[in-house]
Amino acid sequence: MNGETAIINLLKNYFPTCIGDDTAVLPLNDEDVQLISKDLLIEDVHFRTHYFSPMNLAKKALHVNLSDIAAMGGEPQYILCGIGIPENKTIYGQKFLSCLAKLCLLEKLSLIGGDTVKSTDKLFISITVIGKTKHEQVKYRHTAQPNDYICVVGHLGYAQIGFKQCEKALSIRSIYKKAFLQPEAKINEGKWLASHSSVTSMMDISDGLWLDLQKLCEASQVSARINLENIFLSEAFKKACKVLNCEPLETILSGGEDYALLFTINPLQYANIHTMFSKHFGYSIQMIGQLAEGQGVTFQNQGKRKTMHVTPFTHFNEVI
Amino acid sequence: MNGETAIINLLKNYFPTCIGDDTAVLPLNDEDVQLISKDLLIEDVHFRTHYFSPMNLAKKALHVNLSDIAAMGGEPQYILCGIGIPENKTIYGQKFLSCLAKLCLLEKLSLIGGDTVKSTDKLFISITVIGKTKHEQVKYRHTAQPNDYICVVGHLGYAQIGFKQCEKALSIRSIYKKAFLQPEAKINEGKWLASHSSVTSMMDISDGLWLDLQKLCEASQVSARINLENIFLSEAFKKACKVLNCEPLETILSGGEDYALLFTINPLQYANIHTMFSKHFGYSIQMIGQLAEGQGVTFQNQGKRKTMHVTPFTHFNEVI
Repeated sequence: MNGETAIINLLKNYFPTCIGDDTAVLPLNDEDVQLISKDLLIEDVHFRTHYFSPMNLAKKALHVNLSDIAAMGGEPQYILCGIGIPENKTIYGQKFLSCLAKLCLLEKLSLIGGDTVKSTDKLFISITVIGKTKHEQVKYRHTAQPNDYICVVGHLGYAQIGFKQCEKALSIRSIYKKAFLQPEAKINEGKWLASHSSVTSMMDISDGLWLDLQKLCEASQVSARINLENIFLSEAFKKACKVLNCEPLETILSGGEDYALLFTINPLQYANIHTMFSKHFGYSIQMIGQLAEGQGVTFQNQGKRKTMHVTPFTHFNEVI
Repeated sequence: MNGETAIINLLKNYFPTCIGDDTAVLPLNDEDVQLISKDLLIEDVHFRTHYFSPMNLAKKALHVNLSDIAAMGGEPQYILCGIGIPENKTIYGQKFLSCLAKLCLLEKLSLIGGDTVKSTDKLFISITVIGKTKHEQVKYRHTAQPNDYICVVGHLGYAQIGFKQCEKALSIRSIYKKAFLQPEAKINEGKWLASHSSVTSMMDISDGLWLDLQKLCEASQVSARINLENIFLSEAFKKACKVLNCEPLETILSGGEDYALLFTINPLQYANIHTMFSKHFGYSIQMIGQLAEGQGVTFQNQGKRKTMHVTPFTHFNEVI
């Protein structure tokens, strides 16, 4: 159990009904609920300023938070931004805020407040995002059922490859760097999926598929079997992994910062949802496994159980 | 113009109607509005762990935020807490969260979410507070009128003295240290004042009376005259200032972290409000001056204009 899990469990003891999903869910009126979440980004833990431009960092800080709203099937509305700026990064900090304001306008979000303070030596960013959705459409982690199919939309492992390319200062433009530096929250996909009652649970993948699927299983009190042959590995991805000496399948499973959506579908409705999604978005849902009674996440390849060694993604030194 | 003001002005260009009060105000229903605010606390900028116990820090982090809700006349309801914890402060961080959870229960607040990450070397705390009030009772900074009386509830300058006592490691128990380490947001006073329409504007005093009154004047496009003889200086306060080589009146004006309430009252209703407040709370509103047309904050003593040299309170190195 890592430090964050220990702390979340500590808080669950006090507030058992509130903690556990990607956002808090508050009553708004008879029809709608409000969704609220916050995420922190700390310099030299989550980003480095020498390869994150202020615009990259603004995009990342915003979409990391929007992804939480997407995971609940909501529409983001408002942003608050707290920032601690060290003396030697005042210009960077101001540019970051200006970029954030522009991105908010672009996404039709209102930046409604925050706090700006001096920091000692690291940039600290704290974004709070507020959104809403219909009471009956909000998706949780604890509502998956045995036999549901486990599905994903979005690219897994790309951000981890991009992170390593940035750290090694590989001077190439790549879709992997873009996935790490400028993730795009899957707002439209989240809303679409949430509008279908056969989508039984949802969360975003921020800590890697393996770790996040465990959380979903724990919340729903089910077990998961991942079919490794269902995980698509492109030749380009395998090549990028080889350059960095990474095992492609492990990279996908440990991932981290994917900001993809992980969700479960009632198997009777899967074919229908899959077809409609492809028609609507022009790309496909990946079905990567199935839930069952019990607990834990196991792997299977061509019908045979397989042991995988997955080390969760931890940035520079993140796990506490 | 300091860095924070520059940044707030930058954001006001993008979102002119949103930024400027102690909290954002969002529509909730026909009757109520929602109040949302966030504040950051950074180790060695706003606090030091060697004299802030985890409980002190939890109290401070919570009440700094509650004070923003109090300033708008609202009732706090929910808290989100983001925390960045350096490796060598994991136990301190967990104790902080546990204390925060206990304090939330005590104040009947729900801790509904947040984020826990590793920090490099400093503790970093970001609290978001959500409250509500009736649409017609919410108090702003921009609604004060010329001739209104300028009033305060709460002790000014105490926290600055307490901060200096802590920094100099004066091993005394004092009301000043308590004001700095464990401020109490004036929630009940804020709600009471907000229920009276003759209270024409309100904000909390977090950056010191002089600086915060300037903000109120700018927002309302009025000027202020502070009558120095109306500012009460107790013998004990003067003595504590003397030990620390501080000028008592300047300490009160520059203050910082007072978490008192600054508000304005229609002069025709002042006597009535003053009497009712004293009866209700058992202590008095301090009337310290009057607004007029124009701009700027001036000082007067026994009818004569007086120049004061006020240096805003800046913690260890806070102004950016």
